[in-house]
Amino acid sequence: MTDVIIAGIGQTDVGEHWGIGLRDLAYAAVKDAIADSGGLQPQALFVGNMLAPNLSNQAHLGVLLADHCGMRGIEAVTVEAAGASGGAALRQGYLAVKSGLVDVALVVGVEKFTDQVGGGVDAAMATTSDSDFEAVQGLTASGQAALLMRRYMHEYGVPADGFAGFALTAHANGVGNPKAMFRKAIRVEAYAQAEMVSAPVNLFDAAPNADGAAAVVLTRSDLLPNGYPHALVKIAASAVSTDTLALHDRHDPLGFWAARESVEMARHRAGVTLDEIDFFEYHDAYSIYAALSLEAAGFAPRGEGWKLAAQGAIARGGRIPCATMGGLKARGFPGGATGLYQAVEAALQLRGQAGACQVSEARLGLIQSLGGPASTAVTHLLEKL
Amino acid sequence: MTDVIIAGIGQTDVGEHWGIGLRDLAYAAVKDAIADSGGLQPQALFVGNMLAPNLSNQAHLGVLLADHCGMRGIEAVTVEAAGASGGAALRQGYLAVKSGLVDVALVVGVEKFTDQVGGGVDAAMATTSDSDFEAVQGLTASGQAALLMRRYMHEYGVPADGFAGFALTAHANGVGNPKAMFRKAIRVEAYAQAEMVSAPVNLFDAAPNADGAAAVVLTRSDLLPNGYPHALVKIAASAVSTDTLALHDRHDPLGFWAARESVEMARHRAGVTLDEIDFFEYHDAYSIYAALSLEAAGFAPRGEGWKLAAQGAIARGGRIPCATMGGLKARGFPGGATGLYQAVEAALQLRGQAGACQVSEARLGLIQSLGGPASTAVTHLLEKL
Repeated sequence: MTDVIIAGIGQTDVGEHWGIGLRDLAYAAVKDAIADSGGLQPQALFVGNMLAPNLSNQAHLGVLLADHCGMRGIEAVTVEAAGASGGAALRQGYLAVKSGLVDVALVVGVEKFTDQVGGGVDAAMATTSDSDFEAVQGLTASGQAALLMRRYMHEYGVPADGFAGFALTAHANGVGNPKAMFRKAIRVEAYAQAEMVSAPVNLFDAAPNADGAAAVVLTRSDLLPNGYPHALVKIAASAVSTDTLALHDRHDPLGFWAARESVEMARHRAGVTLDEIDFFEYHDAYSIYAALSLEAAGFAPRGEGWKLAAQGAIARGGRIPCATMGGLKARGFPGGATGLYQAVEAALQLRGQAGACQVSEARLGLIQSLGGPASTAVTHLLEKL
Repeated sequence: MTDVIIAGIGQTDVGEHWGIGLRDLAYAAVKDAIADSGGLQPQALFVGNMLAPNLSNQAHLGVLLADHCGMRGIEAVTVEAAGASGGAALRQGYLAVKSGLVDVALVVGVEKFTDQVGGGVDAAMATTSDSDFEAVQGLTASGQAALLMRRYMHEYGVPADGFAGFALTAHANGVGNPKAMFRKAIRVEAYAQAEMVSAPVNLFDAAPNADGAAAVVLTRSDLLPNGYPHALVKIAASAVSTDTLALHDRHDPLGFWAARESVEMARHRAGVTLDEIDFFEYHDAYSIYAALSLEAAGFAPRGEGWKLAAQGAIARGGRIPCATMGGLKARGFPGGATGLYQAVEAALQLRGQAGACQVSEARLGLIQSLGGPASTAVTHLLEKL
């Protein structure tokens, strides 16, 4: 089969963009991605977005963005899978190019958490849980994470500051990423003194909701323009798995079953072992998600994912570098754009363009986009050719 | 290339389902579609939905429905393109099977307009227009249709009752469809006396918002179970085009450009002429949409689409039968499920299972799902093998 190449990448700063709306935010990323691809002309647009219908009163983003980005007429659609919307949109773009029916696909993730017109971000976010059984009880995303984290601490005897390493690593890496929301390293004392968001989840255990847009241009290797200037990055595998939507429906809530399944499928499809993976962009919406994702992927046994952070194994130069450009924690969490930020960052790493964040000799990157507590898990393996 | 077959179909009654929620509504259609397919096991679920995040406080429908329909773990995602969400979901399922990476795809469209928890259907529907420039001014979907209809009447000298034929045909056909919301024929006097929704759009020019779910199972022809009992219906072509989202951005608002483009692409891809098409399931959310869609598809010259209705050419047995099982007008308009209802109905016609609605010797059907005033147009050609 023909390889699907990430030919172009673009991303905006992550942060609070009070002065810019959804369409302009998306355009900024799209413009850069198209230019970076050497001017490829997309025939199809896949938009990853999580909450615009609620937060900005704007659905039907596909056609809005196709037109606003100067591509009036092309196929366009919105893809939604909560926090995994970006990864899911990347998956649809990949399938479209793989089908042979679309030569060049543009995938953009965009999210605006500021300027919301609706009932606030927490209420909107809760629509991505099992609304009839979870949101209706007042359970928030942070509340879900707190339930998981407390259970994990109890089950495995993890101390209160056992999760500090996730935030410390993310913030240390964010310093070198010019697009990151937070570019300041934090000390372990700051973690220990942080206020609680939803105990035991503290401020540094939770990724910040942010505005942002990121985009990639996908095409087949034989369609790249002459003189294409970048090292070739291909999508070596793509896999999606799902779990129950509601946390209370799971027999093994700490298992992150869908995260595990999707990594195993992706590894199987690409034919690679865990040892061959050079870095892992996990979905660290919460520290506990990072720990569980490391275990689900197989990088640590059950109950020991937190030790990888405590022991420095996830730092740049460690055994499995994670959140190499800040992750959700320090780069920020721009909802449905997040999965595309991961793709852009992984491409930068594989091209050797990650600057101060560069993982040396990175050849194979694993990226994973989660919706809810791994209710949806979208996993891609990106490889330098 | 291998053919993509609509192997299974299922649909619920269209109407006001006060006693049943989104997940159960979807399950009813899914269960029937799986059974109809001879028990194929889907690996991927594509959900077409338009307004659940606003009307039911429920996003993340992919995983919710995968789990609730007994398929926990499979790939699942929501696809949104306003009123074309159903058609767009069908397109994603088609691309997935065409890619060779998914053997069996389940596509379900579901919508609940009753029981809304938000600010009402009109406000939610307006989020699918250009919210910053149209909804903010109070422009509704019916208001857009009224602008188009009045302009059409002015431009082409069409009398006030010139559009009656669309409603009369749809309601006449709905009588024979056990799933239709309205199963009662109407007389031209009823049309003439109908109250205005948004002048000149009267009650019979506008399709009723309704609850419903419809599903199809897609697979490759070589994967059909032994003894598969139905005539084979394949997706002969699939095409999507877009226009401006806002009506005021168009130079030629009566052109329905995206509808035209997508039909031409679909015909080109399948290699069929207009004359070979045996029936047309258009997106008659409004009578004016039906007229413009007929013209855009090429069945009538500009300004003469209404004559096809007035002259009986769209009736069963006419030159180009339309809305053969009631269309949006009489079967009802269940938002993002609509495009899947069209697919199910077309499959019934092509299999020869359309009962009282049967178009004799139907071999090739054209279905078109529109988002907004043809802002998004998703067109499929279905063919009996």
